[in-house]
Amino acid sequence: MSTDLDKLIHLISKLPGLGQRSARRAVLHLIKNKEQLMLPLSKTLQDASDSIKICDNCGNLDTVSPCAICTDLKRDKKTICVVEEVADLWAFERGKIFGGQYHILGGTLSAIDGRNPSDLNIEKLVDRVSEGEVEEVVIATNATVDGQTTAHYVTEILSEFGIKITRLAHGIPIGGELDYLDDGTLGAALKARKAC
Amino acid sequence: MSTDLDKLIHLISKLPGLGQRSARRAVLHLIKNKEQLMLPLSKTLQDASDSIKICDNCGNLDTVSPCAICTDLKRDKKTICVVEEVADLWAFERGKIFGGQYHILGGTLSAIDGRNPSDLNIEKLVDRVSEGEVEEVVIATNATVDGQTTAHYVTEILSEFGIKITRLAHGIPIGGELDYLDDGTLGAALKARKAC
Repeated sequence: MSTDLDKLIHLISKLPGLGQRSARRAVLHLIKNKEQLMLPLSKTLQDASDSIKICDNCGNLDTVSPCAICTDLKRDKKTICVVEEVADLWAFERGKIFGGQYHILGGTLSAIDGRNPSDLNIEKLVDRVSEGEVEEVVIATNATVDGQTTAHYVTEILSEFGIKITRLAHGIPIGGELDYLDDGTLGAALKARKAC
Repeated sequence: MSTDLDKLIHLISKLPGLGQRSARRAVLHLIKNKEQLMLPLSKTLQDASDSIKICDNCGNLDTVSPCAICTDLKRDKKTICVVEEVADLWAFERGKIFGGQYHILGGTLSAIDGRNPSDLNIEKLVDRVSEGEVEEVVIATNATVDGQTTAHYVTEILSEFGIKITRLAHGIPIGGELDYLDDGTLGAALKARKAC
């Protein structure tokens, strides 16, 4: 097999969710669609690499820093939603369900993987809150052990500022069937039950 | 979201086995690993696009045409192994189990998807066989309905040349457990049973 092909398969197999076999399939697909896919992908990777910046304020990805969300005058500056990754911000934005600001931690704390508070974008969050304009911080980390640990940590760090700190609710997903739910979720939904 | 990011996610989601969500994950991974992955990938895509040619003789991918396999003097010119895709050739070559030539059809016949003999690289196979040097054609299409149909068609087309035409054996995969096999495979293995 030619070196360029080998190299291409090797690089593509490093993408999350792809292994050697799927990388080989992807490469054959790329070569079959050279004009429509392979060359545009090469160019867009280069363009995006040049143009994408990390927002100094919140950690979002955009072509400008501060990003379009941070500078949007229509958005509520008093509420910051703290998420683990940019993908989580995208999830909120797709749903058009949040009109405040964001803050991207860049991951979670993890004892096992050795990720400390200094590895996360927490210092900047404290700076933003200490400026005094923020009234509520919604902590929207994942409902995993690491996500919950991180949420606890952030809550403690921010507690001295006397602002409202909230967490996303746990419960039955919309459209979810009780029979298929894990015990943890069902228990959380029962505990947080509301009067009708 | 910035246009370059959108475009990149869109292009990556077109790779086989990737959807919108996994494409978003891949893009974030690329941006996090700009120097080690994103830029090398862009460059390698461009390089491979420039250097990779389709072999005029067999349909293989290589930087030269005819490809390294077709011009390898150590390989047996009397046997041609007919496969659907380049990935199948790679599978044989990884196993180092075949020392002859290959011929890549570029797919299968399919009544449902409307793929006719003219869509496949069959004409060139007939040319190669009609030159008179070939003594055996091993048809190694997939054991799917379309693959079998294609094998039948190729067998018929080549029958006039009076050469040996063979097919891969069906049977129990090495390491396979009978209990987990489908009836078709088990039946084929029984039918093709051998004396000990």
